[in-house]
Amino acid sequence: MTRTNPSPDTADAESTETRVAVSTVIFSLRRDGDEDPRLVLPLVKRTRDPYEGLWALPGGWLDASENLDEAASRTLAETTGLSASYLEQLYAFGDIGRSPSRVVSIVYWALLRSDEVDAQSAAHAAAGDAPENVDWFTATDLPGLAFDHNAIVDYALWRLRNKVGYSRIAHGLLPDAFTLADLREVNEAILDRKLDPANFRRQVENSNTLIPTESFRTGSHRPARLYRYNQDVELADRGPLGRPRSHESSTT
Amino acid sequence: MTRTNPSPDTADAESTETRVAVSTVIFSLRRDGDEDPRLVLPLVKRTRDPYEGLWALPGGWLDASENLDEAASRTLAETTGLSASYLEQLYAFGDIGRSPSRVVSIVYWALLRSDEVDAQSAAHAAAGDAPENVDWFTATDLPGLAFDHNAIVDYALWRLRNKVGYSRIAHGLLPDAFTLADLREVNEAILDRKLDPANFRRQVENSNTLIPTESFRTGSHRPARLYRYNQDVELADRGPLGRPRSHESSTT
Repeated sequence: MTRTNPSPDTADAESTETRVAVSTVIFSLRRDGDEDPRLVLPLVKRTRDPYEGLWALPGGWLDASENLDEAASRTLAETTGLSASYLEQLYAFGDIGRSPSRVVSIVYWALLRSDEVDAQSAAHAAAGDAPENVDWFTATDLPGLAFDHNAIVDYALWRLRNKVGYSRIAHGLLPDAFTLADLREVNEAILDRKLDPANFRRQVENSNTLIPTESFRTGSHRPARLYRYNQDVELADRGPLGRPRSHESSTT
Repeated sequence: MTRTNPSPDTADAESTETRVAVSTVIFSLRRDGDEDPRLVLPLVKRTRDPYEGLWALPGGWLDASENLDEAASRTLAETTGLSASYLEQLYAFGDIGRSPSRVVSIVYWALLRSDEVDAQSAAHAAAGDAPENVDWFTATDLPGLAFDHNAIVDYALWRLRNKVGYSRIAHGLLPDAFTLADLREVNEAILDRKLDPANFRRQVENSNTLIPTESFRTGSHRPARLYRYNQDVELADRGPLGRPRSHESSTT
């Protein structure tokens, strides 16, 4: 793309040896019985080489006719049946040894609420097109994955944990109204450690990111106030300014 | 990379139509006479189509034998003669219309102190290999650039401005010891607006990111205390955890 390079129509063979793929990391929460919720993600079992039989992130090759985020949405849907209202670009992984052939993977990520996952799975089951070879795994307890996908998930976890500190990203895993205990459990699942309830309540109340509602959740415990997020705070890095978000506007 | 895709050795022609390039956004500060410092970046004039005669970000094609960050360092050096101790990945730009052919550009960025720029330029001038067709431009006052490079610079500016709020990224444009006025001027250049000196001093002192030294700068004004950054705070997103940073270790 500069004066020292051949123009695209005179490109030599070597520079076309690299292929572009997309992959997606979809985080959700799962709660089994009375256990604390766990951070989970969907993986796809590979049915051909390389890495036949191993689990891998959902993804596929970039098609020359689609934008990067469109490719991520399409391959996520094709392999898992899942869709997310917004996929955020995570990182481009392109080390020479990460695959038997030279592949640069543009990785996207998103958070999906468990009720969204359940609704999408139920719709596919009813339509008889439930995807095969897909399963959900605990993010902090993965088997050895294909390619460099363990390192990719580790990086996504690191970014998620960093973002919890300065954004309302946990909202992506919560319903519109939630209790402080709900929010703390989401943070505990993301950070993979327990938080002191009193300290957590104080920090959240001082942060000005929540708006208390007049509603309460009742049940076996004493009534707990429901909160909403302050919508003035950004949920996620929405990517480059001014780029058309055709995917977003068509699916949200 | 998933069960629904052909393995690389059976790839069809269509999926190899996309080529991978790298580009770099290098921000530095320039001060002309008594003027306030400006945020500047180097651009390279294109000498062939597409966009012959327009200015573009330094960059070039990814070689199949190098990692992404190595390609960014190499093409930055080849086109501008500049080197940075660490290039951080900014974003992968891959919209279908961004170039006459299908090109995904992995964009890296870095901050370079003006004394580093001057030293590198002087070394090239002395060796007689000063790069041609390179010039520095004010980041907020660019001409129409080749490809989508105006949008890329806008995004890099947006990321830089965001990072100023929660990291010590401005350190990348300052010497080891600096006055509060130096730091304020860097922040003003990045944010492209004036900051109130008293408010700025209070915020910085409350943030715990600076360590006062026992040294003072003297001159035409009253002596001003010199500060250092607290090294416990991270300078930049160092990329995925656990990835070998061969470039970094060989150049820092």
